[in-house]
Amino acid sequence: MGGRVEIAPGTPQGLSRRRFLTRVGMAGGAATLYGSMAALGLTAGPAAADEFRPPRQNELPTNARGRTSVVILGAGIAGLTAAYELQKAGYDCHILETRDRPGGRIRTIRGGDTLTDTDGVTQTAEFDDGQYFNAGPARIPNHHVTLDYCRELGVSIEALVNANAESLYYHENTGSTDYGPLANTPITHRQAKADYYGYVSELLATAVDQGALDDVLSTDDAERLISFANSFGDLRGGKYVGSGRRGYTEAPGAGHTSGVFDEPPPMSAVLHSQMGNRFSFEFGFNQAMMMWQPVGGMDRIPFAMADAVGKKNITYNATVTEIRNTSSGVVVAYTSGRPGRTRTIQADHCIATIPPMVLRDISSNLSNETKTALAVPTGANTGKIGLQYKRRFWEEDEKIFGGITATNMDVAGIWYPSSGFLGQKGVIVGYYSGAYTDLSIAEREERAVAQGVKIHGDAYRDELETSFSIAWTKVPEALGGWANWPNPRGDAYEHLLKPDGHIYFAGDHLSHNIGWQAGAIDSARMAVMNLHERLVATAA
Amino acid sequence: MGGRVEIAPGTPQGLSRRRFLTRVGMAGGAATLYGSMAALGLTAGPAAADEFRPPRQNELPTNARGRTSVVILGAGIAGLTAAYELQKAGYDCHILETRDRPGGRIRTIRGGDTLTDTDGVTQTAEFDDGQYFNAGPARIPNHHVTLDYCRELGVSIEALVNANAESLYYHENTGSTDYGPLANTPITHRQAKADYYGYVSELLATAVDQGALDDVLSTDDAERLISFANSFGDLRGGKYVGSGRRGYTEAPGAGHTSGVFDEPPPMSAVLHSQMGNRFSFEFGFNQAMMMWQPVGGMDRIPFAMADAVGKKNITYNATVTEIRNTSSGVVVAYTSGRPGRTRTIQADHCIATIPPMVLRDISSNLSNETKTALAVPTGANTGKIGLQYKRRFWEEDEKIFGGITATNMDVAGIWYPSSGFLGQKGVIVGYYSGAYTDLSIAEREERAVAQGVKIHGDAYRDELETSFSIAWTKVPEALGGWANWPNPRGDAYEHLLKPDGHIYFAGDHLSHNIGWQAGAIDSARMAVMNLHERLVATAA
Repeated sequence: MGGRVEIAPGTPQGLSRRRFLTRVGMAGGAATLYGSMAALGLTAGPAAADEFRPPRQNELPTNARGRTSVVILGAGIAGLTAAYELQKAGYDCHILETRDRPGGRIRTIRGGDTLTDTDGVTQTAEFDDGQYFNAGPARIPNHHVTLDYCRELGVSIEALVNANAESLYYHENTGSTDYGPLANTPITHRQAKADYYGYVSELLATAVDQGALDDVLSTDDAERLISFANSFGDLRGGKYVGSGRRGYTEAPGAGHTSGVFDEPPPMSAVLHSQMGNRFSFEFGFNQAMMMWQPVGGMDRIPFAMADAVGKKNITYNATVTEIRNTSSGVVVAYTSGRPGRTRTIQADHCIATIPPMVLRDISSNLSNETKTALAVPTGANTGKIGLQYKRRFWEEDEKIFGGITATNMDVAGIWYPSSGFLGQKGVIVGYYSGAYTDLSIAEREERAVAQGVKIHGDAYRDELETSFSIAWTKVPEALGGWANWPNPRGDAYEHLLKPDGHIYFAGDHLSHNIGWQAGAIDSARMAVMNLHERLVATAA
Repeated sequence: MGGRVEIAPGTPQGLSRRRFLTRVGMAGGAATLYGSMAALGLTAGPAAADEFRPPRQNELPTNARGRTSVVILGAGIAGLTAAYELQKAGYDCHILETRDRPGGRIRTIRGGDTLTDTDGVTQTAEFDDGQYFNAGPARIPNHHVTLDYCRELGVSIEALVNANAESLYYHENTGSTDYGPLANTPITHRQAKADYYGYVSELLATAVDQGALDDVLSTDDAERLISFANSFGDLRGGKYVGSGRRGYTEAPGAGHTSGVFDEPPPMSAVLHSQMGNRFSFEFGFNQAMMMWQPVGGMDRIPFAMADAVGKKNITYNATVTEIRNTSSGVVVAYTSGRPGRTRTIQADHCIATIPPMVLRDISSNLSNETKTALAVPTGANTGKIGLQYKRRFWEEDEKIFGGITATNMDVAGIWYPSSGFLGQKGVIVGYYSGAYTDLSIAEREERAVAQGVKIHGDAYRDELETSFSIAWTKVPEALGGWANWPNPRGDAYEHLLKPDGHIYFAGDHLSHNIGWQAGAIDSARMAVMNLHERLVATAA
């Protein structure tokens, strides 16, 4: 499907291929669908990489069903997906997981949870019952395969508020940048957008009126553009003079209260704030609303999938110590239960989903090329802090129900909880850069609170009850929030897409959705397809 | 607080006065707060109209507590709010309601519900258990007082998806307008925005580069504008050549699947579509996300408030037949139970929340001025159809989880349900214009389905199980979706803000949030304040 698709009535734009096919099928019946499939190259040859062809039981030789064994390293979402899909086709799967629970980096922190970091420091969460935060992945877009598994596994979802007109932008002046009159001032997304869109529309209308765009616009297009600018910017007589869209000093109400809004700041102050450069975050393919989260915490997904895979097929507290290809399969050694007590497991195949930052330090007879490749990615230095407040002041006082305040401080994002609305307590999440990693637990809280106070005032300190922070490079089983590749990714990435002997690799780091559950799922499904197709081809 | 507020660091922009005061208090302590209150004129004289001063029990003369009686006409949210707030101050309130349930136009349609319209046609909803739609108000913005009552009454809320990148725009050509190459083609919001923002940013950058805006932009501002345009439009070398923001033909996935997107349609086709003129809907003060709905149906709010008011204080099936001011109070006659059996109730005061289109036909000794005023508003000719589907094809096939598809057809908006995600069945709502009002029930379904098929294909017809439609001008107790005033509203509106003898008027029609629950609540609170202040002043 290279190149451009011609626009014709009835051809939806901007759909995934699967959606496009669905629509063609709907509109035109089976014959049209078949024709489109042929045109898209889907009826012959290998299917496109983004289409999962689940292994089917009847494709395995009878004597292989339930007897072809796969050991899977890691019960994160990649490992779980691999086991879940292989089991459907009759493979005998077993997962080794170093933690005492499924999910890997999909971690929801609740009261009583503990975390011991690579410095040996242990935190225990003191959140109240029902209070929690997602320390790893926290959002699911509409189009990710993750939702398909939620449906299949019966995991309920609710909105994750990724954008909210009432949340804030905050730019404080730095040594190198002055943000002008709006610096050091929390501004609602609503206001920033109304003011930017207003002034930009005014400029556009001005340019059109002056004939500056006559070379590129027909008379009709120019008229349509002016009409768009008036609507988009809420212009009056071609000028932006403020708008109720930016919020009111006196909101519309009963009787004579028709609503009063301030004059906007001057255009120059708006542009100087540079807040407009933040708008595009929420246009992103993976960040645009709507976004979703499981009810009760992100780990509801891996727990549901682990249930489906079966308790007997997962060994927790199993830390892999050695991985060996043999002539006929793999042998994996691991410690289980008491330290020092080593067991081994043999299997026909292995899928290793352990993050490369950890996997590369495990003894193995993997090829030198593989070892070199595993050494390339680096762990993302990122973290989160969950702050439990005794009162949801952001909702009660500021009418912020979910959403993210974006700042240029190192606690880059302040997430208001997307559940428990109108309740008493809540957990705000600071999503921070590496600047917090080497701070003590107490210092992290102090720093996050000091930055939050600049935006929310003393409530951000005074109403705090307890916090819990995570620095992903210090989590022993992860050594990073995700894996960063060089750009371009190069040979190392290429190499790990192929098996090393009987050992396949999978994880979000082997996808173009790094840091997303969908990346891990898609990668696991690719490993499953590769393994299965090789097996079927060999058996044939 | 007339005129402009100077921008100074620490002064949040775009906040309501109440929020502004809260923030000043947070940042500067009580002394600062007091100073700001004085500056805003809040420490002396009458409070601003948008600030509700709830009546307090200790303000009533002892002998008036529990003995000052108020009869309230209508158990919609206005009447309920009036009773609820007056009761807190010790008034003896009684509500007469013609329906058999509270909520008025706040109606959630569930299986078994019936509706008999002014033509005498009765529908009974055949929705499955758990399937429903909100036939009246269906959304609550962050800042509306409605949420305060949800908190106070313990009504749980969930997201109402008012905007979603995956929902669609659809413009079909009409006799008078040709929408160009994208006509008659469903386009995702995601794509329409990416393409508009891309091309508009390109035009803006072009104008700046040509010096067309040198008169109004400093060099620094021009640079910042270019930076904004690059970010906002995802430009490459100053040009818009498409973007992953518009969606992919092959989404980013595992392995080599880095994502493929089509070239966008030409600028002229994008402008010709006029879809960009729809974007500003979701920038509106009352429409910007986040938006909310009660879990289980909008009528959870009036039911909870009716519980708080008390069963014994509301008479259902009570149709008012006469309203009379007397020298000392009011007498209201109503039929209750068996038709023709008339009862009367006497009270010191009355608050009439019956919509003017209905109230004006009730016998009364209201002044001629009042009668003239009540005759002015007209009932909005609008309606909804709820379509229960046996499969949520919009979620499964099209990845649309909630949101609204906007069309230029007369089924103007197609709402995907904002609850029950990933489930089996769901109710899609068509929000239609008056064009459906005079159709038969069957014809309404046929018309709504035919229009939906143009967007969603045959599934929109084939997977339909049952429907229920409402035309608000034909609902006997409402005679309109809301009340429309002339513009400007004029003397009639002014007149109804004042009591006629002992009779006060309230309802969303006496607010600047017509059609919103908050308008009804604010209006009721204003009537409560007026009534209470007059009583206190008289007693003093």
